[in-house]
Amino acid sequence: MSEQFQVKADPELWAKLDMDVERFSNIPPMLTGVFNDVFLSQENRPQGMGYFDNMVSNIFTGRIQEMYDAREEGRPVVGTFCVYVPEEIIHAAGGVCVGLCGGSQGSIGDAEKILPRNICPMVKSAFGFKVGRICPFFQVVDFVYGETTCDAKKKTWELLDEYVPTHVMEIPQMKRERDKKLWVEEVKDFKTAIEQQTGKDVTETELKQAIETMNAKRKAMQRLNDLRHHDPSPISGRDMLLIQQIAFYDIPERFTEKVNELCDELEARIKTENYVAPKGTTRLMVSGTPMALPNWKLHNIIEKSGAVIVNEESCIGTRYYKDTISTDGTNMEQMLEKLTERYMQIDCSCFTPNDDRIDQVIKEYRESGAQGIIDYCLQFCHTYNIEAVKLRQACEKEGIPFLAIESDYSPEDVGQLQTRIEAFIEQIQD
Amino acid sequence: MSEQFQVKADPELWAKLDMDVERFSNIPPMLTGVFNDVFLSQENRPQGMGYFDNMVSNIFTGRIQEMYDAREEGRPVVGTFCVYVPEEIIHAAGGVCVGLCGGSQGSIGDAEKILPRNICPMVKSAFGFKVGRICPFFQVVDFVYGETTCDAKKKTWELLDEYVPTHVMEIPQMKRERDKKLWVEEVKDFKTAIEQQTGKDVTETELKQAIETMNAKRKAMQRLNDLRHHDPSPISGRDMLLIQQIAFYDIPERFTEKVNELCDELEARIKTENYVAPKGTTRLMVSGTPMALPNWKLHNIIEKSGAVIVNEESCIGTRYYKDTISTDGTNMEQMLEKLTERYMQIDCSCFTPNDDRIDQVIKEYRESGAQGIIDYCLQFCHTYNIEAVKLRQACEKEGIPFLAIESDYSPEDVGQLQTRIEAFIEQIQD
Ligand code: SF4
Ligand code: SF4
Ligand code: SF4
Ligand code: SF4
Repeated sequence: MSEQFQVKADPELWAKLDMDVERFSNIPPMLTGVFNDVFLSQENRPQGMGYFDNMVSNIFTGRIQEMYDAREEGRPVVGTFCVYVPEEIIHAAGGVCVGLCGGSQGSIGDAEKILPRNICPMVKSAFGFKVGRICPFFQVVDFVYGETTCDAKKKTWELLDEYVPTHVMEIPQMKRERDKKLWVEEVKDFKTAIEQQTGKDVTETELKQAIETMNAKRKAMQRLNDLRHHDPSPISGRDMLLIQQIAFYDIPERFTEKVNELCDELEARIKTENYVAPKGTTRLMVSGTPMALPNWKLHNIIEKSGAVIVNEESCIGTRYYKDTISTDGTNMEQMLEKLTERYMQIDCSCFTPNDDRIDQVIKEYRESGAQGIIDYCLQFCHTYNIEAVKLRQACEKEGIPFLAIESDYSPEDVGQLQTRIEAFIEQIQD
Repeated sequence: MSEQFQVKADPELWAKLDMDVERFSNIPPMLTGVFNDVFLSQENRPQGMGYFDNMVSNIFTGRIQEMYDAREEGRPVVGTFCVYVPEEIIHAAGGVCVGLCGGSQGSIGDAEKILPRNICPMVKSAFGFKVGRICPFFQVVDFVYGETTCDAKKKTWELLDEYVPTHVMEIPQMKRERDKKLWVEEVKDFKTAIEQQTGKDVTETELKQAIETMNAKRKAMQRLNDLRHHDPSPISGRDMLLIQQIAFYDIPERFTEKVNELCDELEARIKTENYVAPKGTTRLMVSGTPMALPNWKLHNIIEKSGAVIVNEESCIGTRYYKDTISTDGTNMEQMLEKLTERYMQIDCSCFTPNDDRIDQVIKEYRESGAQGIIDYCLQFCHTYNIEAVKLRQACEKEGIPFLAIESDYSPEDVGQLQTRIEAFIEQIQD
């Protein structure tokens, strides 16, 4: 695989999507290089990673073509920026849901021509992709559905609407009865927006099926993460992060099947004691803000420093799959209620208070057999950054080694991060 | 006045409030110096400013003593950080409401020992005042009532609660029917919290009276701001800012009386053509984030550069008094509804969409006879910072000279701001 890997190009398809084809043509070779360095340099990877490597290879071609075809068939193709937007409803309408959070430095400059510099790189990267017409996913969607989770996103959607139809869902800031009531109304509005796009109502059978599909996907990811917690680790943190990133743009049924196949392989590996990190490797857990594709910066530094990452408490991580929807609901009203309940368990730092998240981080720390927590905060993300104060306090109380890192997508702080992370690993080994 | 002005000290009172008396003792002389430079160096100030200068002189003594006495009498003393917290209810319960937003560089260091550096200086300054026990207002309150307007405040309240009882009110992020419904519930919770503090219910008569008191205060401020719009200006922007700042810690009835007295004087001045800025002085309007006491940095630079400020579109400015409460409501339910309606007109950038604010800024620009807008954004305030993009677009469309400034409380950027502001004024004069 290593020798042949290539992120593929399809200028004809890109032109149909009104992309800046000339500029975008530089991206696939660049991504090929980075992917080789970060992923294919690893030894003894599970065979099942072949499928996911292939998903990266086809990220700007095969997968885009599938979405393009879906759109041509009249199926809604919806871009989102938050795990709070209920995918089940999109799938119930036969649609495609794709996460559009930006993880690349390459589009930051485009964004900063309009947006302030000192906001989160995830928001700037996404906005820049659209403004520069250099992201095929952004170009293939019918519309995007934003939310009000954080200040930076909430206000950026007002500007994004000038470039792509942008709906916004209000996420409450607390989790009391009155908040849930407001949010269930938002979910209903979301359903209506999707139905307006397709021109037909979502049926109970369709929603039930979609809930089961997404539950199966989340359960497969839970299973994978449980296996990965084995000490020694049967799979690297980098490979796990990649799978969790691909979860945001792959077809759910296919993805679930491939994750389960990988789980079977990991079970066999554990039986034969075939691991990726030898016994005694320092085990670290990462918590905090999501790492959108291709943001592999921290994982790459940590694992090249000799530690292995055994858990991601993040929305591109456990927050995406730790909860499933109760299938007790039979009619539409009940199903939407159960759906709402599941979503309200997401412990994003945008909520106040959010002590459940602190407990959840500690719980995942214990379950994963980690020896320390690196809390990762995207630069200028106020909510996670301030919540890190509480997380540090909790870790100090529990005697858990804790390191808080705030970073963006630029390569500038790599050396400094390396030094801090190596010192943290040494401190744990002592 | 100029020779005698002094910010007074009362170490005994401060000790009773558990302040860091030794450290705080440096503050009054420092403030005396700054006040002399920024305010008392002005020529031909209205006589009515004497009262407000005196309020500054007594800021850490006489006024604190009044609040201390109120608390001793069992009247609730409540600290707030946002014009969204309904003062009327506090006054109806016989209480005292004081704005605790921080406007000083002096407490930033205290905050940064705990909070991230890259959040808004207003939040850091306030938090630092409490942590360092160097603000008598913070020390005299029974509790504080925060809100969820912005990410930085919302998450800081979780930490502040470790130092002072901190209630939090959820402010919705949109202004639809379901949002108003949620917010009226929050207002009712607020009333309950105040009633629990006093041990007795607020009556309809008391609320009616408080609404009238606050309406009278807001109307007096409207009257003052209208007079101030006269060309040439009968009062400086610095003096106007000071009055609008004092509005957040003075007794409403007394304040209203003194504002009206000043209005009478300004009317007489206009008749006799006695102005503070000669005809032809460049007239600028400031929009954006509030300037909490003693944040006089921008006004000082602008007016010392030869322009006069003729309007503040800000919460320490017109947003505080542009709307009054309809007195159509007679019973408690109706009164609270009318109150809610008035508060929902506040066009804070935390709302999305918030196009009403853009229209309001343009309207105030026209009414004030300004020749340009300086949009002021506290550093790292995402909502105002991103909203400035829309404001710039609107100003370009209307042909209004526009300058966006992002700044904090440090003296570091003063030289750079001076240069930019002087260039802006020149551009307008051309
Ligand atoms: S971190 Fe919060 S805002 Fe970001 S995707 Fe997760 S839930 Fe949404
Ligand atoms: S990382 Fe923080 S600032 Fe960035 S999009 Fe997520 S919640 Fe918003
Ligand atoms: S600017 Fe917004 S958050 Fe600040 S005081 Fe005004 S309404 Fe409140
Ligand atoms: S200026 Fe902005 S960041 Fe600061 S407290 Fe006000 S709304 Fe929040």
